[in-house]
Amino acid sequence: MLATILHAPGDVRYEEVPEPTIRKPTDAIIRLSATCICGSDLWPYRGLQPLSGPAAMGHEYCGVVVEVGSAVTSVKPGQFVVGSFATSDNTCPHCRFGFPSSCIEREFMTGAQAPYARVPLADGTLVATDEMPADDLIPSLLATSDVLGTGWYAAEAAAVKEGGTAVVVGDGAVGLMGVLAAKEMGAVRIIAMSRHKARQELALEYGATDIIAERGEDGIRRIRELTDGIGADSVLECVGTQESMEQAISVCRPGGHIGYVGVPHGVTFDGQRLFFAQSSLLGGPAPVRRFLPHLMDLVLSRKINPGKVFDLELPIADVAEGYKAMDERRAIKTLLRV
Amino acid sequence: MLATILHAPGDVRYEEVPEPTIRKPTDAIIRLSATCICGSDLWPYRGLQPLSGPAAMGHEYCGVVVEVGSAVTSVKPGQFVVGSFATSDNTCPHCRFGFPSSCIEREFMTGAQAPYARVPLADGTLVATDEMPADDLIPSLLATSDVLGTGWYAAEAAAVKEGGTAVVVGDGAVGLMGVLAAKEMGAVRIIAMSRHKARQELALEYGATDIIAERGEDGIRRIRELTDGIGADSVLECVGTQESMEQAISVCRPGGHIGYVGVPHGVTFDGQRLFFAQSSLLGGPAPVRRFLPHLMDLVLSRKINPGKVFDLELPIADVAEGYKAMDERRAIKTLLRV
Repeated sequence: MLATILHAPGDVRYEEVPEPTIRKPTDAIIRLSATCICGSDLWPYRGLQPLSGPAAMGHEYCGVVVEVGSAVTSVKPGQFVVGSFATSDNTCPHCRFGFPSSCIEREFMTGAQAPYARVPLADGTLVATDEMPADDLIPSLLATSDVLGTGWYAAEAAAVKEGGTAVVVGDGAVGLMGVLAAKEMGAVRIIAMSRHKARQELALEYGATDIIAERGEDGIRRIRELTDGIGADSVLECVGTQESMEQAISVCRPGGHIGYVGVPHGVTFDGQRLFFAQSSLLGGPAPVRRFLPHLMDLVLSRKINPGKVFDLELPIADVAEGYKAMDERRAIKTLLRV
Repeated sequence: MLATILHAPGDVRYEEVPEPTIRKPTDAIIRLSATCICGSDLWPYRGLQPLSGPAAMGHEYCGVVVEVGSAVTSVKPGQFVVGSFATSDNTCPHCRFGFPSSCIEREFMTGAQAPYARVPLADGTLVATDEMPADDLIPSLLATSDVLGTGWYAAEAAAVKEGGTAVVVGDGAVGLMGVLAAKEMGAVRIIAMSRHKARQELALEYGATDIIAERGEDGIRRIRELTDGIGADSVLECVGTQESMEQAISVCRPGGHIGYVGVPHGVTFDGQRLFFAQSSLLGGPAPVRRFLPHLMDLVLSRKINPGKVFDLELPIADVAEGYKAMDERRAIKTLLRV
């Protein structure tokens, strides 16, 4: 089959690879209904993350099971499933504690920007729907696999509460999903930091009450004004750079919570700064598997529409253009039709 | 009067200073019933924290009000009071949010290693007892002012829960109070890291279930063994060095909580390390004022005996020897009789 391989920074190709096969009895093979490009795929694409040889790209997925290993009991061929970008057995102590993304058996999915993909730990990782979902729900179901689950975790880690104030740093797809999550969790004031018109509009549609276009000191001052000089109860850091982390720390109130879900690249925290800021900090790969049943329900009952975050849709053969559009910020997130 | 002044690293003197006076209408003057030396006093004493000229030492205090400013309404001369090392108005948004140690009016107490001290923001800072406490309770009441309150915050920030597992990094006075707090909050396994016999014994008396004498990689391995390879639910970091912080991060389970209360000195966190460790981190100056009523009740009803942490008692005139004994780790904590 053809699949997406990153050969070097900027060099992504849709090319012939072997079809995935069952390697372990706990594997499943799925036929993807759609797939997409993640903001985190841009790190190696931009040369900001080391690449050791050609890499099979793609870790967000939903689709129909076509084959399962001999040990798989909870899903079967023909079922529509969604899984997390981080596979999990869903039984280990970390899974039971609510953090399947730190499962002792965890693998990070790869190779999902393709028509078929192998999903390890299928029993623990995949969640099946009762019936085949409507076509128009596919983008939103795909979103639950990572981008929505990650924005959701940002809001949870930032302890968003009914009636609270939330700031979302980052207007990428995860940040926009963070806005949606903060809204669902009952925040009454949701301040989105964004300088891009299309993203601002989507943020407002997802529930943002205020948009701050300023960055740096100006952005911090504006947020402090909006929060009566107090700072926000919850800050969702959805970028992963030193600058965005500084923003997050600077606008969080003492005793407030920062959830950071952008994989930190070159970020360090100064211990004393963090100490006196007195905000709680929780990050990490999102425990999406824990959220999946709830998020899939919200999508299937059409209560949320995270799929709107895909503002570019391409046939998967044009995946290189999908990367380019996201790299140049012409697209928020690219959906790939398989 | 005579009071404790740090002139330079290692040079602490009990010498003549002006008596404290009411400077603002919100001040109170107290006559100390006892005072003490804090582990954090050792940072400047050891030259590990810059000193800009002679410093009036001491921030832990309890005693009898002798004078109040014209605006003070909640305490009056003759009452026995305890206050936090961080003063607070107890009405600002940060105070109401439960973080009086980040009060917008906060001052850090100084000059309490003396017979008399000025307490700013007396209304918000001081908590009076109904009657004059018994003499033998003075050390424990003094402990609530900082060392117990700080250990208590470490346990709260580390989200110690009924039935949970807690690791306490640091066997100084704050660490020992952290053990006591974890016990009170219902932890069923409390692992104290200590290499000193006297401190180990006190840790056991305060509720530690296991003592780990090893440090570094060995200490981490031992704790991982004791927690079935999972790591602890809660880690109380009560030192403030890079090494102790590394220990804390390494023994906390994914989704677990680290409360750090040792003021970080030269500590940095690597963003990516912290991200993948996936533990929640909360530090800062302890919001002792919030805890004071409860902690004072526990002491007055003799349910806890934090005063045992004072294993050296000296007349305040011998304060220099008190510092020396703590610096050389001959004493856990020195109580000074005034």
